Amino acid sequence: MRIITISREFGSGGRELGRRLADLLGCGYYDREIIAAIAGGKALDEGYVARALDGRAWRNMPLSLRRSFTTVASSVETALLLEQKRVVEEIAKAGEDCIIVGRNADVLLRDYAPFNLFVCADMDAKIRRCKERAPKDENLSRREMERKILGIDKGRARTREITTGSVWGDRTAYHLVINTTDWDIEELAPAVKDFADRWFGRTP
Amino acid sequence: MRIITISREFGSGGRELGRRLADLLGCGYYDREIIAAIAGGKALDEGYVARALDGRAWRNMPLSLRRSFTTVASSVETALLLEQKRVVEEIAKAGEDCIIVGRNADVLLRDYAPFNLFVCADMDAKIRRCKERAPKDENLSRREMERKILGIDKGRARTREITTGSVWGDRTAYHLVINTTDWDIEELAPAVKDFADRWFGRTP
Repeated sequence: MRIITISREFGSGGRELGRRLADLLGCGYYDREIIAAIAGGKALDEGYVARALDGRAWRNMPLSLRRSFTTVASSVETALLLEQKRVVEEIAKAGEDCIIVGRNADVLLRDYAPFNLFVCADMDAKIRRCKERAPKDENLSRREMERKILGIDKGRARTREITTGSVWGDRTAYHLVINTTDWDIEELAPAVKDFADRWFGRTP
Repeated sequence: MRIITISREFGSGGRELGRRLADLLGCGYYDREIIAAIAGGKALDEGYVARALDGRAWRNMPLSLRRSFTTVASSVETALLLEQKRVVEEIAKAGEDCIIVGRNADVLLRDYAPFNLFVCADMDAKIRRCKERAPKDENLSRREMERKILGIDKGRARTREITTGSVWGDRTAYHLVINTTDWDIEELAPAVKDFADRWFGRTP
């Protein structure tokens, strides 16, 4: 079974890369599906679950308070994190090849020896990508968009540090860190697929 | 012309990867050759030149003093850095495909649009690799070896920051960051070659 996990900076194209990889590999793709499964199982709103899991509650907590996570995370948030862990593990247990975007799946699924990617890009490239994909009524300035991107990534970093003890974006925490700045994701995907094939095919 | 630059953590196998890539691509490989050219041109000892360029003089300089680089770097060191720049540019000007390891060639050759790799590995893997390659009379403990590795990389980081303003190891400063921990470099090299081929062949 081949599991590829994708961690990514907001706006770097990690999600598009994941979808295209899943197409090329003909395998399952899990991203918002995980949020939907968590929300469905608990009869909660998907948007609420996504926001609760994105680290809003602990985003600004000083690292020195890391140990007192329970003082900032409500019991609902704690329950959602546990449910997320369960859902991600269930995907792996199904035993099928798949791509999982986000959710710190690389750490949650360590025992399944996944191939772990981190996707990043220059701020200019991320802002461009976000602008292209923004809803029509979202009219953020460059500065506002940058603040939004940094805020979302800060939440991801904090969530990872607090729930896994691993540093988000730390180069040695992943097998490959891909900078998408100068790539068309459609052309990048086969390059990553080939690399992943070599990874899974290497001598153990 | 295709130039691939390799920056690397000490002990990560970046040099071996570079050599194997050069073999696969049938192209030039520059590493200690650059030090030799600098030393030869100035009638200096290679060991002396290598040590002078590895950041020993400014390794422990606080970053707040960055602007007063000239107060810690002697005129010899400054001259060596300039000569290094000239030698690296000369390699690029020759117009042949090549691999360049170290020397911040990714920054020096920005105008030549090189493909820039950063190679890293877990500390355990780096210590293992260093022990395998250590001279017989070098008998460092694990802790001493770790301190040596961190010290050399600190010098590289400082040299890069001070001479280029770019952050060593920062994921967005490179096109691809490769973690060699779970790879045999001999199997990794063709995977990187294929990725580089896709990079140079992409739609501009």
